[in-house]
Amino acid sequence: MADEFDVIVVGAGPAGENAAARAVRGGLNAAIVEGNLVGGECSYWACIPSKALLRPVDLMGEVSRVPGLTLGPIDSGAVLARRDEAVSYFNDGGQVEWLDGVPVELVRGRGRLDGPKRVLVTAPDGSTRLLTARHAVVLATGSHAVIPPIPGLAEAAPWTSHEVTATKSVPKRLVVLGGGVVACEMAQAMHGLGAEETTMLVRGGLLDRVEPFAAEFVARSFAEAGIVVRTGVQATKVERPRPGGPLTVHLSEGPPIEADELLVATGRRAASDDLGLDTLGLPAGRPVEVDDSMRATAVADGWLYAVGDVNGRNLLTHMGKYQGRACGDVIAARAKGERDDLPSMRDVAGGYGAPQVIFTDPQVCAVGRTEAAARAEGFDVRVVEYDLGRVSGAYLLGDGYRGRAKAVVDERRRVLLGVTFVGPGVAELLHAATVAVTGEVPLDRLWHAVPSFPTVSEIWLRLLEEYGL
Amino acid sequence: MADEFDVIVVGAGPAGENAAARAVRGGLNAAIVEGNLVGGECSYWACIPSKALLRPVDLMGEVSRVPGLTLGPIDSGAVLARRDEAVSYFNDGGQVEWLDGVPVELVRGRGRLDGPKRVLVTAPDGSTRLLTARHAVVLATGSHAVIPPIPGLAEAAPWTSHEVTATKSVPKRLVVLGGGVVACEMAQAMHGLGAEETTMLVRGGLLDRVEPFAAEFVARSFAEAGIVVRTGVQATKVERPRPGGPLTVHLSEGPPIEADELLVATGRRAASDDLGLDTLGLPAGRPVEVDDSMRATAVADGWLYAVGDVNGRNLLTHMGKYQGRACGDVIAARAKGERDDLPSMRDVAGGYGAPQVIFTDPQVCAVGRTEAAARAEGFDVRVVEYDLGRVSGAYLLGDGYRGRAKAVVDERRRVLLGVTFVGPGVAELLHAATVAVTGEVPLDRLWHAVPSFPTVSEIWLRLLEEYGL
Repeated sequence: MADEFDVIVVGAGPAGENAAARAVRGGLNAAIVEGNLVGGECSYWACIPSKALLRPVDLMGEVSRVPGLTLGPIDSGAVLARRDEAVSYFNDGGQVEWLDGVPVELVRGRGRLDGPKRVLVTAPDGSTRLLTARHAVVLATGSHAVIPPIPGLAEAAPWTSHEVTATKSVPKRLVVLGGGVVACEMAQAMHGLGAEETTMLVRGGLLDRVEPFAAEFVARSFAEAGIVVRTGVQATKVERPRPGGPLTVHLSEGPPIEADELLVATGRRAASDDLGLDTLGLPAGRPVEVDDSMRATAVADGWLYAVGDVNGRNLLTHMGKYQGRACGDVIAARAKGERDDLPSMRDVAGGYGAPQVIFTDPQVCAVGRTEAAARAEGFDVRVVEYDLGRVSGAYLLGDGYRGRAKAVVDERRRVLLGVTFVGPGVAELLHAATVAVTGEVPLDRLWHAVPSFPTVSEIWLRLLEEYGL
Repeated sequence: MADEFDVIVVGAGPAGENAAARAVRGGLNAAIVEGNLVGGECSYWACIPSKALLRPVDLMGEVSRVPGLTLGPIDSGAVLARRDEAVSYFNDGGQVEWLDGVPVELVRGRGRLDGPKRVLVTAPDGSTRLLTARHAVVLATGSHAVIPPIPGLAEAAPWTSHEVTATKSVPKRLVVLGGGVVACEMAQAMHGLGAEETTMLVRGGLLDRVEPFAAEFVARSFAEAGIVVRTGVQATKVERPRPGGPLTVHLSEGPPIEADELLVATGRRAASDDLGLDTLGLPAGRPVEVDDSMRATAVADGWLYAVGDVNGRNLLTHMGKYQGRACGDVIAARAKGERDDLPSMRDVAGGYGAPQVIFTDPQVCAVGRTEAAARAEGFDVRVVEYDLGRVSGAYLLGDGYRGRAKAVVDERRRVLLGVTFVGPGVAELLHAATVAVTGEVPLDRLWHAVPSFPTVSEIWLRLLEEYGL
């Protein structure tokens, strides 16, 4: 019957889409519930628009280092127009078509759990529809930005990642609360597109989850570019007398800052507040804890799963998608009574340390463990570092190329535990590290993976030589 | 005594430098003989200057695909000036300093074998010096361009890779003989820097050693850019009445072409013509055949080695350097009577298929075997392909991104035999493939090497999904 499905996925972002599609590939039928645009945050208000905004800014940096080329002033209107195209003008028709093709049944509306294997969907018109799952419900509702309890902040209608990535114009004066990935990327993008006065207020340090040296490269670059980074200073009060007008940010020390917009990027929280988790006796507003097969650990009979940001494991699109694939596969296997312990049905990658790229200038990318994390876990660690600017391939990319690489080695097994790169255009260097770390390719084998000359990838040879090979 | 060394290396290009430095690291002393600039072809007339010329051309392509950015006309003078800087103004002081630091004794002059373990060096002033080797002589003299026997060609003083990479100006009309890597890269560079009429005369097809689809991408791009590629047409006669003046290239069909310069890039030959190989009873002008430890197979007592282009194994700088490292290590081990069969003392990588990047627009890069080669060798082959333009990370790089990837899988072992990428900016994608191919990382393991979103490296996920994972 129409309202019963093998699998019901709540949330049609990339993680949910992957879970549904893999379950269907495994022979099940599936419905996916979405109250907003199919495609999720990533497609409209995160990865895609942010990179569409950052790409020209990144290229401006590249060109500035190459004699013989001269750029005219950037046309931020054209950049915003391409961003609009990249987000399909906030039309999810293409994604819906993809769902139809899988096929996965799309149920428009807000989904909430309503007891075991039941999902109550409230459509935009207020009508409700009860869906029941024969085998599994997958939560894939993602996360949302946290607005810290600063007096006046919420009332000032600050930007979050949603508004900054979708903006129709670039503010002249921007204040950014936070120093993480979203904060850094959007400060970079807005500054490059015309936000002459960009000030970041950072409680701890910039990018404090990556290797400290990489964060320092970004901090130095921001300083040189004129992006003001104030660490250890907090916003104590925000005033915006007129909606849409200028705002004043009062600080824990020093004079207040006037700005045209304020971006809050101080963290994200699992979107589980209003999911009906209480009908199962689970707490709302917290990540849904899952095992390595994405099955919720606190739910009897094992019918509830969670993938992507809402499970709190790794707030990264590619990791959510990866979890979604494992989840869809394992649900299908369990439904059919087949083997459910294949490696492809587990989040193996997360255990190594998820890969991530930060699209600032310089870019930062890393996979696996930082040195500090590896030491804290008791590994027998040795570290090698090398300046990317000393690699011919990097020198050839532009004048004054500055970058650095660091590898964290498990001395006992002679495999890589983690690798970090910082430098212009290093994003595509990461995957070799991801293969090496996740594949546990021994250093003595990596020696024979000869990097092509003159690419930046020759850093691999230099790191191995530094190690003593 | 001063004229006896543990190891004598003939040729101070990258391969020879690596061999000497590794032998010294192993506890031996070494001399290196060089009649030209220390650093070799790569540093002055090949990889380095060619990429210095190509980088701005490549960036012009990148910028042209990104709305919002506008480039002024390229200043080819500034590009040539940076090329001059990149080749250190043809001054090898920096490289000599590096040799001093190793230390390796530099002997300036032309080295020729003079019987077993003897190298006779003729200095630029005509004086000679006889060096003798206690343990080994390493030939590392590289290769040189072949000038085909076309009437009038040699007399017309054509460009080879030497002249084109070192040019002080960009000809308006350029004819290129050949369709290989040097021909394509230099046609691209000169055309981008102002050679409005660039015509390639190609006997077979463009880039006929890479996967055919990749060559087709380059051919299409050249056609759209206005680089004329004429296949199956041969130059039959060349006339250049006045040295340095315009020249006329007569063809096997159709009217002759007038041009300002003519670049010959029809192949290279081992630089072994005048090396004294005859004093050992070996043929001149042919590659010196070596085993996997770089030891010449035809020489008694195993004291002669050859690394880099002169051994004909892989005419690529990075492979020559890799061979040089193996060679230096194995010579030191044998001199000390130590184990000489460690993997690091062998050319292991060459057996998998050397990685290579071609810096055209689009770039082509490949490692391992092509499909045709794998089939010819009798592997149980399956092939997967995917359009790079369908990867979000590629779309975000620019409008109309066109590219493609192909993986050749050994079905029996479920490992990759070869990978080819073609597309703008794919150069740094290669190393992940090199690690996967050389490391024989199983496909089921590569599944857990999650590519970061939204990078172009997400092609890896698409290829594995196409495969059926």
